[in-house]
Amino acid sequence: MKNLRVIVVKSAWICSLVLSVFSTAWSHERQLPPVPEGASPGLQKAISAAGAPSTRRRQVSAPTTEDEWRAAAAIMASAPGPSLSDISGQLNVTIAAQVIAGVDVYWINPMGTPKTKGLLMYLHDGAYVFGGGVKSVPEAARISAIAKIPSIAIDYRRPPDDPYPAALDDVEAVYRSLLKTHSPENIGIGGTSAGGGLSLASVHRFNDVGLPAPGALYLGTPWADLTKTGDTFYTLAGVDRILGSYEGLLENAAHLYAAGADLKNPLLSPVYGEFSGFPPAYLVTGTRDLFLSDTARVHRKLRAAGVEAELNVYEGLSHAEYLFIEGSLEHAAIYQELSIFLNRHLGSP
Amino acid sequence: MKNLRVIVVKSAWICSLVLSVFSTAWSHERQLPPVPEGASPGLQKAISAAGAPSTRRRQVSAPTTEDEWRAAAAIMASAPGPSLSDISGQLNVTIAAQVIAGVDVYWINPMGTPKTKGLLMYLHDGAYVFGGGVKSVPEAARISAIAKIPSIAIDYRRPPDDPYPAALDDVEAVYRSLLKTHSPENIGIGGTSAGGGLSLASVHRFNDVGLPAPGALYLGTPWADLTKTGDTFYTLAGVDRILGSYEGLLENAAHLYAAGADLKNPLLSPVYGEFSGFPPAYLVTGTRDLFLSDTARVHRKLRAAGVEAELNVYEGLSHAEYLFIEGSLEHAAIYQELSIFLNRHLGSP
Repeated sequence: MKNLRVIVVKSAWICSLVLSVFSTAWSHERQLPPVPEGASPGLQKAISAAGAPSTRRRQVSAPTTEDEWRAAAAIMASAPGPSLSDISGQLNVTIAAQVIAGVDVYWINPMGTPKTKGLLMYLHDGAYVFGGGVKSVPEAARISAIAKIPSIAIDYRRPPDDPYPAALDDVEAVYRSLLKTHSPENIGIGGTSAGGGLSLASVHRFNDVGLPAPGALYLGTPWADLTKTGDTFYTLAGVDRILGSYEGLLENAAHLYAAGADLKNPLLSPVYGEFSGFPPAYLVTGTRDLFLSDTARVHRKLRAAGVEAELNVYEGLSHAEYLFIEGSLEHAAIYQELSIFLNRHLGSP
Repeated sequence: MKNLRVIVVKSAWICSLVLSVFSTAWSHERQLPPVPEGASPGLQKAISAAGAPSTRRRQVSAPTTEDEWRAAAAIMASAPGPSLSDISGQLNVTIAAQVIAGVDVYWINPMGTPKTKGLLMYLHDGAYVFGGGVKSVPEAARISAIAKIPSIAIDYRRPPDDPYPAALDDVEAVYRSLLKTHSPENIGIGGTSAGGGLSLASVHRFNDVGLPAPGALYLGTPWADLTKTGDTFYTLAGVDRILGSYEGLLENAAHLYAAGADLKNPLLSPVYGEFSGFPPAYLVTGTRDLFLSDTARVHRKLRAAGVEAELNVYEGLSHAEYLFIEGSLEHAAIYQELSIFLNRHLGSP
């Protein structure tokens, strides 16, 4: 796994550098908390290596115009990352680019006999703007490899060319197609960050259009509220080493994606929707995660609606940082427990 | 319920004022986060009413000498609070002061037919120093009333006269006595803050001395680590409106209770113990809780040991604040879900 890990770490470093440059400001001048002793050695090392955020970065503006967004997306797309054959070789999965109902997807199959009839519709991260193409695949492939179930990583359309509701339309189209050959209780849906938020919004959409709910939800620190409402946008500003602050990239991406729609529409900020009838959910966040509040608020809404939901909060973890700390105990625990969860809920072979 | 609520709110206000006076310092000068929109109206109102912490309070020292601790404990003990007959009348429970195996307890019985064979050994909050006598009772009575199971609220010995391990000895003595008439799987153990930490330490102790594990754990924002290790002691210093900071009351109480023993001994800081064989646990914390990290770290240790454990994080909630916001949605949800949890795990009638 070493080569892939080096590529992922390099890619993460460059992506977080790019994200940092686009974040305008930490809302408080903060003394950074010490490296958390209760985190694993792997996470501690990653946090130590990151150092303090540079003040210079805070003065650079996040993209605002469509051209600036296109330029930023091009930088992110050209950041080094594993190729499909890297991923395939290292994780022992097959990956096929396909088109389902007019939507670009990657169909990922683990080697050997599947453990269940289940499969995962995977929605990638990237603030709704970044992360398509080959970058749709790595986390989906990781889950397929560990859970031994196929994933369909959806390369959903993104702004500025295709803002809301294009991404939702794509997910709905793929889901309708999968339902011709699969039972909804065998289909999971999930992803990290925007992928988690889009998964929640998709279940609201399925409900709106009369489609059955899927069988399980993976909500990795979901972007469940596009507005600056969550408590931890305030309490952890300047502490989350991946995102830094709401102001800047996140705020601008929210408006770019919404394209004039009300940010509190449940199809954009799914925490404001109704959760009765939602499938069992596995949620992950961390004590330094700007989206800790959003994750916890969704967990509470699910539990209040009587939905089975497992909330997991990792010591010292910033937003979506588990994607980047391969080899750490946190990374291993998150995907191991997610695999058990998906296999428990998506049916037996 | 109105009278009791008024008394509880007054009592909470005075206790938090006293606690604030004893907290020496917030470690950062912080701009307080706004009232969280995602909290319930009841919690929002409580936060608004609290206002910003006064800088004057930061300069007052926490107790250090035994005499200062005795004076502080006397102030806390004389703070107004509901009497046994207030509690009994309002919650429709009977309360009997008893001595079990030489230990003072309050045996609380709900009216009517019990829902299960279960009962709860309840351990009160108060940083190991405060909160005995009648103040052992209110949360236990609340749980008995809602869950329809008896509680034994243990008025365990406290420092400065009786530091560690006196409290543990008391819990063990009561548990040994209860085991003569009850199956361990019908006995729950739990409490808030120091009561949650002491519950965890008690299960470690039971394991050490060869007693069977109880049937369920209630861990309300448990003080699971007496050292300043948890990430949120840093990230939420000055944000938690109940505790303020580790420095001051908490740090001094930790040393008073340990009385020279290693603070990282699992019987003092139970997060450092082994969790295999622990009973199912229900955990509660909030996004402004200094003990969010300790709660999350315990949850992770339990899950890693294969123990069923439900973590709940409430938006905007400071340490143990649910005790004081009767009538709020948070208060209702916490005790309703705890009741379901206890009844599920402590056996059928």
